[in-house]
Amino acid sequence: MEISIGVSNKHVHLNQKDYETLFGDIPMEVVRPINQPGQFASNLKLTLKTEKGLIENVRILGPVRDYTQVEISKTDAYKLGINPPIRASGDLEGSSPITLIGPHGEVNLSQGCIIADRHIHATEEDAKKYGLEGLQKVKVLFESEKGGVLYNVNIRVASNSYFEMHIDTDDANANLISNGDKGTIYK
Amino acid sequence: MEISIGVSNKHVHLNQKDYETLFGDIPMEVVRPINQPGQFASNLKLTLKTEKGLIENVRILGPVRDYTQVEISKTDAYKLGINPPIRASGDLEGSSPITLIGPHGEVNLSQGCIIADRHIHATEEDAKKYGLEGLQKVKVLFESEKGGVLYNVNIRVASNSYFEMHIDTDDANANLISNGDKGTIYK
Repeated sequence: MEISIGVSNKHVHLNQKDYETLFGDIPMEVVRPINQPGQFASNLKLTLKTEKGLIENVRILGPVRDYTQVEISKTDAYKLGINPPIRASGDLEGSSPITLIGPHGEVNLSQGCIIADRHIHATEEDAKKYGLEGLQKVKVLFESEKGGVLYNVNIRVASNSYFEMHIDTDDANANLISNGDKGTIYK
Repeated sequence: MEISIGVSNKHVHLNQKDYETLFGDIPMEVVRPINQPGQFASNLKLTLKTEKGLIENVRILGPVRDYTQVEISKTDAYKLGINPPIRASGDLEGSSPITLIGPHGEVNLSQGCIIADRHIHATEEDAKKYGLEGLQKVKVLFESEKGGVLYNVNIRVASNSYFEMHIDTDDANANLISNGDKGTIYK
């Protein structure tokens, strides 16, 4: 069973309050829609800061959400000298503290930085159609010259979804995977 | 069958001529022996340069060899805007051009930059003992929270070897593997 891959570079989701603190009156605009319905890469970028490091030009994904969340790779985490947990989006309890610096202000998050888990977005219809119903985790094979099988890929069922697997840049670069490449799901 | 992992950060091997061009009279000293017999992390560092990017503070591994070779990850390759092939050490025909900048001079390599293949160092005795004799490739499982099975791991038999699997920082970071962690070989 084939699945298309979306590679997620480091990015930030903002709640309304943090958006206003960081960007003031600057409007959040759609630069490029992403495959998940309603989601988009915005025009806004900020700087991530910790005691040990700095990463500039990190893009905001829109629209605003109920929570502020920073998603980075392990490679990014080494640069920042932090050790974020592997988590699903929104599961932020006990995740890493980090500071966001925008053109209008700063936000000190006591938690909010994670390494996103490997996951597959699916509607209930997709899950039924592809035999993923009731499954929580699968394995996905990539047959590149430096490929292999990625374990612990979480199935995420929601009504407003585009059927796609999301991996971070570490998984993509390690396995020589690019956006739109295909993997094979093992149940 | 368990195997211990060595994570290789980006590094450079130099031949005598290029060493002298780049470092002049600066002696190459042992900062830290590495597990492969006679090999060491040296005191010397240089800058990698391409038309599109720069990476500073890249360590030289000693001693000098018959050939100059630059080993980077795919993540590094994106920074440099190049597309090096996946290769075994010493297999440099048609590999990426790159410029080396040292404190004493520069070397423009028309080829020499690779992404190292995943490989296992073994003596003939190791190969016999672990049942790897005659095999060219194996798969290796890592059971981390973001682990999986790495395919296309080449067996490299040589008399002067320490039994160990070498992966690059992309494989390490994607699978949350650190130096000295253990994998399981599948034949």
